Amino acid sequence: MFDKILNSLAQFILLDKSEQDYFVNKLQVRQFKKKELILQEGQVCDNVYFINKGCLRYFYNIDGEENTAQFFFENTWYTDFDSFLTGRPSRLNIQTLEKTDVLMLSSKNIHEIYDEMPKFEKLGRKMAENAFLGVRSRNEMLENFTAEERYLNLIKERPKVMERIPQHYIASYIGIKPESLSRIRKNIMEK
Amino acid sequence: MFDKILNSLAQFILLDKSEQDYFVNKLQVRQFKKKELILQEGQVCDNVYFINKGCLRYFYNIDGEENTAQFFFENTWYTDFDSFLTGRPSRLNIQTLEKTDVLMLSSKNIHEIYDEMPKFEKLGRKMAENAFLGVRSRNEMLENFTAEERYLNLIKERPKVMERIPQHYIASYIGIKPESLSRIRKNIMEK
Repeated sequence: MFDKILNSLAQFILLDKSEQDYFVNKLQVRQFKKKELILQEGQVCDNVYFINKGCLRYFYNIDGEENTAQFFFENTWYTDFDSFLTGRPSRLNIQTLEKTDVLMLSSKNIHEIYDEMPKFEKLGRKMAENAFLGVRSRNEMLENFTAEERYLNLIKERPKVMERIPQHYIASYIGIKPESLSRIRKNIMEK
Repeated sequence: MFDKILNSLAQFILLDKSEQDYFVNKLQVRQFKKKELILQEGQVCDNVYFINKGCLRYFYNIDGEENTAQFFFENTWYTDFDSFLTGRPSRLNIQTLEKTDVLMLSSKNIHEIYDEMPKFEKLGRKMAENAFLGVRSRNEMLENFTAEERYLNLIKERPKVMERIPQHYIASYIGIKPESLSRIRKNIMEK
């Protein structure tokens, strides 16, 4: 149950057995069905999630349309970091796209961990740095690449998205209509 | 010389006198004239700057035009966090808009500090979190507000920008031509 999350931690900090036990005791286990909303816009995101199994997407509701911003798979951490840090209501929605098992760490528990075991600050720093780089790289993608380039990039860089995510969400993620994605796919096949 | 930077640290972590001395010894003092380029696109940004006095702007060169992304004043930290974290060449330029004194911390020294005095990890975490919130809030501004709303927001939230930054940079920052800013200012005066 906790192997994956402990492996993930081990990339950043070394923990002995008692420290691992301490950390694991702060976690809550949650299981979601396919297509459940884990977080809805307007709620404060008060947790960090580690995905043990399954897949999440997050999206914005804009003028009645769902605007898909990202996909997350097993072995990754996820939160609405903005809402989590500021306590402001979230502007986004997090939904499972498959049956999904997560380990959840509440804001209260995370701050207890920082106070009681300061070596976790390093983990917090790395996560914040990665969150920063994630927003920057999405900005860059939207500002500098055409829809076709974005799609080719997904094929190259993120095979899990291609294998497990329905086409209409992929279209939404690269910022185009499903019909345009079909046209792009056709173009690429003909090249 | 070091009062401001130590006050800034004190918001995040408590340091005794010997820890303060240790930290101050890692800093380099640099003075720049008005309109100097501190960082040029293509260079790797290998330092974090604390502004003791003066003012910086950072901008992108896009199709021969300078696109101003942000202004920073005394008592703030600044770096191209993207280039700093990844070691990739920077896409942006950092320029002084006034005679500016900074305290500089090299990447090498920061990593030494993290290793030798792990309580600084908390500072690193807070800075990364703030960098994340900074990018998010700029995204939100560009996505959700008109140029006039952006300008009114600057007047309300950032008096230093209004007092010390030339109008053509302010126009560039809110994403419009100087002529459009004159029109907006006229509209606001007439209301």
